[in-house]
Amino acid sequence: MSIVVVGSVAYDTVETPRERRERQLGGSASFFAVAARGRGPVRCVGVVGDDFRAEDLDLIGRHADIAGIARVPGRSFHWSGRYHADLIERDTLATELGVFADFRPEIPAAWRDSEYLFLANIHPALQAGVLDLMRGPRLVALDTMNLWIETTPDLLRAILRRVDVLLVNEGEARLLTGERSLARAAAAIAAMGPARVIVKKGEHGALLFGRESVLAVPALILDDVVDPTGAGDCFAGGFMGSLAQAGVGREAPDAAFRQAMLDGTVTASFCPEGFSVEGLLRADDAAYARRLATLRTMMCP
Amino acid sequence: MSIVVVGSVAYDTVETPRERRERQLGGSASFFAVAARGRGPVRCVGVVGDDFRAEDLDLIGRHADIAGIARVPGRSFHWSGRYHADLIERDTLATELGVFADFRPEIPAAWRDSEYLFLANIHPALQAGVLDLMRGPRLVALDTMNLWIETTPDLLRAILRRVDVLLVNEGEARLLTGERSLARAAAAIAAMGPARVIVKKGEHGALLFGRESVLAVPALILDDVVDPTGAGDCFAGGFMGSLAQAGVGREAPDAAFRQAMLDGTVTASFCPEGFSVEGLLRADDAAYARRLATLRTMMCP
Repeated sequence: MSIVVVGSVAYDTVETPRERRERQLGGSASFFAVAARGRGPVRCVGVVGDDFRAEDLDLIGRHADIAGIARVPGRSFHWSGRYHADLIERDTLATELGVFADFRPEIPAAWRDSEYLFLANIHPALQAGVLDLMRGPRLVALDTMNLWIETTPDLLRAILRRVDVLLVNEGEARLLTGERSLARAAAAIAAMGPARVIVKKGEHGALLFGRESVLAVPALILDDVVDPTGAGDCFAGGFMGSLAQAGVGREAPDAAFRQAMLDGTVTASFCPEGFSVEGLLRADDAAYARRLATLRTMMCP
Repeated sequence: MSIVVVGSVAYDTVETPRERRERQLGGSASFFAVAARGRGPVRCVGVVGDDFRAEDLDLIGRHADIAGIARVPGRSFHWSGRYHADLIERDTLATELGVFADFRPEIPAAWRDSEYLFLANIHPALQAGVLDLMRGPRLVALDTMNLWIETTPDLLRAILRRVDVLLVNEGEARLLTGERSLARAAAAIAAMGPARVIVKKGEHGALLFGRESVLAVPALILDDVVDPTGAGDCFAGGFMGSLAQAGVGREAPDAAFRQAMLDGTVTASFCPEGFSVEGLLRADDAAYARRLATLRTMMCP
């Protein structure tokens, strides 16, 4: 079943202790689309400037339908950051919104009955606008960030009432709820709307707070981390792709979502192994199957 | 089968955002002894000063044989620390060694054929001295810290060759090996001696790097954290208690150690729920069984 993803299609300038990459393909929708591995199919909504390279659009186009990516005059969204030696902490050096500043997502009419919707981390008013256009998706997942929790709390609360799965990190879960305990924070978020809450913990894995159960999925242990940018969006792509492939809707039991957590985790594990989407692109089905087996061994005593 | 634990029996002054506790029972051997839940039996080796309260010795004595705890003139080891608001980060305010400065562990003759030995975090020369006194234990586990890795690396390396299980945190694993990747660090440690490496990650759980497999155990998610001091030693107590109860020696397959990781994790989960050993003492068998069931549900998709 189809997935619509709405998010950024961008350029990232990334500096790691070993290397610097200038204006490489990035953005939440790009990572998500490649990560979903054609399981959707995936339909991509975003905006790029006239500086966006045709080959980058083509790359996304090999994994997703890009008819929803508008190309307009101006510069593409550009994020620039520098990673610390641990390849976990990072400093944002610049965020140039470019054409993204005036982004008003348009969902092609033929896409509005897509069954799955992933609202990547953009302004909650835009997220709400997209959701308004959809005709009753089976499942809506949403990502957000500190900025929206702090600056547009009411808009965020309003859309959360219409969301099935919220993806946040630990700090965001605490900021959103004022609860220090993750257990209490997850319960408070569930009371706001999303019956399922995924807490992303980076190299420590992710937690799924379901209706009746909690699942803790460890991150796979990597020999080498090159560039972790986008891993969270890759997790979302793998997770939503898994749900869409299996036809799991909001009414499904926790067990269905627990399985999708593994797919999200395996998918995300390839991301940090290369710059941009390079790690994802290197992952073939055999490598995917091996990691899924490794992950199961890591999880079940 | 019997476990000998050698470590500190101490007083902790702990300040949390909510409360301050002055000179409460602490020390690695104390936490370990209570945490092992009589599974050993546990035999405790340490030293206290003449300021040590009889009721505190009695408390340890209800869970372990304390014939190896010497009482000598002077002040007991005293650690003082202040936790940050997250109840994870902490600052050490004072470390007064007192009688611990001249601690030369003596193992009662009748204890030297104990099957299990836990060398808590003390000077590696003392750890080696204890190991020399033992008559071929079935399994030796060792904890250490940055201080010894940095100041006595050769002594530490020498004893690691005789150790079966090393318990460290992430930073210590990296410092000890110079490897940023935990996978590489664990492999490097295994090459130094310990066939099994446990990487403790606090609220993110723990990893067991076995001979042929890796297990990631999440921490249980607590409603309320009061004082996390000692949780690592409680993990060790639960882990070693489990091995001793099942009679698991160094030659056993990974599976036996994987099971013990769950016992360590459940045991450690009670520690932060109270000051000192109060959380541990409140945990009855029913609560233990409930948490073990919860942990399994958290782990297996």
